[in-house]
Amino acid sequence: MILMNSIGIVKTDFFTFAENEPFALDSGAALSPVTLAYETYGTLNADKSNAILICHALSGSAHAAGYHADDEPPGWWDDCIGPGKAFDTDRYFVICSNVLGSCYGSSGPTSINLAAERPYGLHFPVITIQDMVRAQAHLIDHLGIDTLFAVAGGSMGGMQVLAWAALFPQRIRAAIPLATTARHSPMLIAFSEVGRQAIYADPYWNDGDYYDQPQKPDAGLAVARMVGHITYLSDDSMQEKFGRRLRGRERFGYEFQTEFEVESYLKYNGNKFTRRFDANSYLYVTKAMDYFDLGAGNGSLADAFRGAADVQFLVVSFTSDWLYPTYHSKEIVKALTAVNADVTYLDILSRWGHDAFLLEVETMTELISSFLGRLSH
Amino acid sequence: MILMNSIGIVKTDFFTFAENEPFALDSGAALSPVTLAYETYGTLNADKSNAILICHALSGSAHAAGYHADDEPPGWWDDCIGPGKAFDTDRYFVICSNVLGSCYGSSGPTSINLAAERPYGLHFPVITIQDMVRAQAHLIDHLGIDTLFAVAGGSMGGMQVLAWAALFPQRIRAAIPLATTARHSPMLIAFSEVGRQAIYADPYWNDGDYYDQPQKPDAGLAVARMVGHITYLSDDSMQEKFGRRLRGRERFGYEFQTEFEVESYLKYNGNKFTRRFDANSYLYVTKAMDYFDLGAGNGSLADAFRGAADVQFLVVSFTSDWLYPTYHSKEIVKALTAVNADVTYLDILSRWGHDAFLLEVETMTELISSFLGRLSH
Repeated sequence: MILMNSIGIVKTDFFTFAENEPFALDSGAALSPVTLAYETYGTLNADKSNAILICHALSGSAHAAGYHADDEPPGWWDDCIGPGKAFDTDRYFVICSNVLGSCYGSSGPTSINLAAERPYGLHFPVITIQDMVRAQAHLIDHLGIDTLFAVAGGSMGGMQVLAWAALFPQRIRAAIPLATTARHSPMLIAFSEVGRQAIYADPYWNDGDYYDQPQKPDAGLAVARMVGHITYLSDDSMQEKFGRRLRGRERFGYEFQTEFEVESYLKYNGNKFTRRFDANSYLYVTKAMDYFDLGAGNGSLADAFRGAADVQFLVVSFTSDWLYPTYHSKEIVKALTAVNADVTYLDILSRWGHDAFLLEVETMTELISSFLGRLSH
Repeated sequence: MILMNSIGIVKTDFFTFAENEPFALDSGAALSPVTLAYETYGTLNADKSNAILICHALSGSAHAAGYHADDEPPGWWDDCIGPGKAFDTDRYFVICSNVLGSCYGSSGPTSINLAAERPYGLHFPVITIQDMVRAQAHLIDHLGIDTLFAVAGGSMGGMQVLAWAALFPQRIRAAIPLATTARHSPMLIAFSEVGRQAIYADPYWNDGDYYDQPQKPDAGLAVARMVGHITYLSDDSMQEKFGRRLRGRERFGYEFQTEFEVESYLKYNGNKFTRRFDANSYLYVTKAMDYFDLGAGNGSLADAFRGAADVQFLVVSFTSDWLYPTYHSKEIVKALTAVNADVTYLDILSRWGHDAFLLEVETMTELISSFLGRLSH
């Protein structure tokens, strides 16, 4: 059953480039060919001025909205993309592409290394957020779009938005970085590293060479995901969602079983994740996030945004987001105002932690629609 | 070399009880015999009124102060226990015992199960914070002490302090719970469970039956410890300690090596931990913490403290402790004032996160000395 107000059934497309001239990466390595999986929703207008690029977070995919099949859940940001929604597909042509290094159809460690005729595994080059964005720019070229009306995303998606503003300011009219940072903090690196160590510790990981093995490093990947899940919530939201309630029992069992609701939630989500994500991709994508420091090599963060004075920014943080706390967004705002960019900034009161950018749908809809509407006039 | 102001060389003693009559546990199981490892510092006075019990945290031991050998680091709270220190061994007789379930000489999963003539492993009964405290009471009996001058501890040590106030209020004159909670929150349970899942995921864990195996579940235990370490610090203290500095290199290697200082710190401490702690004990001790909810089964937290109206409390929280945030301590204070206990409460401005109770030595020394001094008069 397709829900009301949905864009209905969609499908993923694939764009391959750098078949002849290799795609140069920040690391100095080069990749050839490069494939990006992408989806589009709505219609590109005649002067190609209504395109919005949506950038996804760590575990996301190109499937941001609509349905692949009637019986599956919709795309990851379906709440905000569709007719009459925050990103209104009656007005805008919305594009979402899977990032380089991921495992949802774009080039990554699961892709076949043509030179070796087997999956890359750890032979895939380490990539950066900027590499992801440069690859997206090739896709935008391919779609015949010179200037994006906007680029938007939360968390790692927000990092890509900021990288767009730094690398291609003349190609975007507006930028919407949500619940994000311009520089991964040591605490963020620490959580990434714990996830990676959990994967390394799994003997089935086998130095990343497991694609032809019957067993995958699912246990390690599940632990990595559980750590992640805690960081996406808040103390307050966990109190509300789980409290100290037990799962399917009335009293303690005094044994090492899943007893608390919150344990059950983590275990369920950890295991579910192993059925849809690749352990090596988890390593690559978290590494790209850890490397992200837009000010480094640019003198200062303001210098990184030097070319973005004409871009309109909507920066949003959430009060209970302790993973990407408000001060990260304030540093972005400070750098942007230093170069006289037009910045709208909101620190939204929310109890939902980092996940708020996905959950505060009503607020986000009002905020984003009105911001984009102002730009259209 | 023994540092100035130290109590010098100390040794661990062992007390065994419940050899004939088994020790009854909250779970309904019973344990026989029960051994507690303990150390004492200073001299018990003639009327046995100057004894202070120190309770340790998750990974602590009875070795709280002084040195076992000249070339080893001192006990875990040596900064605060010794001549002229917060717990002044010139005035007080200080006792610290290793908790039940741990692996530093007290009965736990590494102990020999006499019935099976091999280590208990997961056949050791699940214990609670209250069980730990009831066992400590046997030790206090054994030492011929009727009333403790004070009981003190941080983190899980603070939980034991609160359990003493609830179970044996007539046996303590003062209680000093630091950076702790009366009820483990879902976020705390979640972090515990991730640590346990990392251990379960290690194939060498082997359902807890690994004591006669050449390989131990070190990789899983190390990941558990790394998660823990992040939670003991703060965003701010990690910025100060590590920033985004690289370790032993000047630029990114674009490979999956330890590159950032913070990664190196976590890995080093994770590995170091496996040389001193037991994976099964990690399961038992975290489980005891997760079960801890002093208000449950007592009507309310205030009801749990009903008998503690004559106990003097010093409750301390730290502003940057996001693991046991200030509101946990405020709930304790509220319950204590509801039963008209004498409460001194401080929320100390600190950037060191949960670890502050170990690191803010000057503040703690002044605070604890003055609190104990007031009681002596």
